[in-house]
Amino acid sequence: MTEETRRPGRRRGSGESPQTREAILEAALAAFEEKGYTATTIRGVATAAGVDPALVMHFFGSKDGLFDAAIRGPGMPLRRLRDVFEAGPLDGLGERLIRRYLSIWDDPVAGPRLHAVMQAAASSPAAGGILKDFMVAEVLQPLAEHVTGDDAETRAVLLASQMIGVAITRYVLRVDPMAALTTDQLVTAVAPTLQRYLTGDLGL
Amino acid sequence: MTEETRRPGRRRGSGESPQTREAILEAALAAFEEKGYTATTIRGVATAAGVDPALVMHFFGSKDGLFDAAIRGPGMPLRRLRDVFEAGPLDGLGERLIRRYLSIWDDPVAGPRLHAVMQAAASSPAAGGILKDFMVAEVLQPLAEHVTGDDAETRAVLLASQMIGVAITRYVLRVDPMAALTTDQLVTAVAPTLQRYLTGDLGL
Repeated sequence: MTEETRRPGRRRGSGESPQTREAILEAALAAFEEKGYTATTIRGVATAAGVDPALVMHFFGSKDGLFDAAIRGPGMPLRRLRDVFEAGPLDGLGERLIRRYLSIWDDPVAGPRLHAVMQAAASSPAAGGILKDFMVAEVLQPLAEHVTGDDAETRAVLLASQMIGVAITRYVLRVDPMAALTTDQLVTAVAPTLQRYLTGDLGL
Repeated sequence: MTEETRRPGRRRGSGESPQTREAILEAALAAFEEKGYTATTIRGVATAAGVDPALVMHFFGSKDGLFDAAIRGPGMPLRRLRDVFEAGPLDGLGERLIRRYLSIWDDPVAGPRLHAVMQAAASSPAAGGILKDFMVAEVLQPLAEHVTGDDAETRAVLLASQMIGVAITRYVLRVDPMAALTTDQLVTAVAPTLQRYLTGDLGL
């Protein structure tokens, strides 16, 4: 069978190249976003990526494995939080973090993707555990390394609790007064909370 | 057909009594908790409540209608937040609210029920809208009425954002340092955030 007579819908000469892997992960993220976690299937992702379902299984093993790889990949918007705390001082970090976080959620590509990831995590206990593990390993632990003291991990998760709550009320549930605040208003209201969690006296 | 020869599984002489309605709502909450929102069916709830599926449809119209009625019923644990702000002064309300909220989540009956309600809301956009409407009408608006100033609704939703984030990190995702804090530690860490949202200078 020559290149020209291959079945349509199969990526030419793809094999196990990194490009194929990336294409599958992109298709998976798009499917989680469009159909939700439960309705997404290995077969559907394979068709969208133009590869054989067996190749998706070979790479990722299961839908949960696909979700795990997708949120660990470069397409995961929360990765963009890391350079905020890796680049700057603790002073003012609360404000810089919430500003970057809101800019991710307001981004027309990253926002819906993050929304889909959160919905997937909420609709499947396995996916929820996968997102939690990613969040701890790739966001909370690296953040805690930049925070001083024995309670650095507690400070990091308190900060995360406020950021997650902002995302849910503003972008997921879209509760009116929260969704109507400007970025600057929300930063002004929330940054002092985050900064206190990072460097203030928590009484612990 | 006498009472004795009725089909098993049908509640005797129930008709449209308030008791029957309550039994259906209890069965619905239990089903959302055990099976999740997607897998819960009108038929399954009817069987568990010992009534005909047509009666469930007659009362509630659809699964979403059932969810709406269930979270508006007396079995909804978040109702217990209201007497906290209806009974006492604004001073110290942040601490009293988080203490009551944690006691609801730590309750062996109310905690799993609230968890199930949040998962249902996360797994279905319709259910999410229903929970949001309940939250705004039955918790945020009544709270805002006790808060002073033009920005009372904004203050109420900022408070809600922190409480929701605490629940997700501590009780849903069970992130280690958050889940390991004692009630008193968590109250000490979070109450100042809530009190500032209620009565502090937010810079808005």
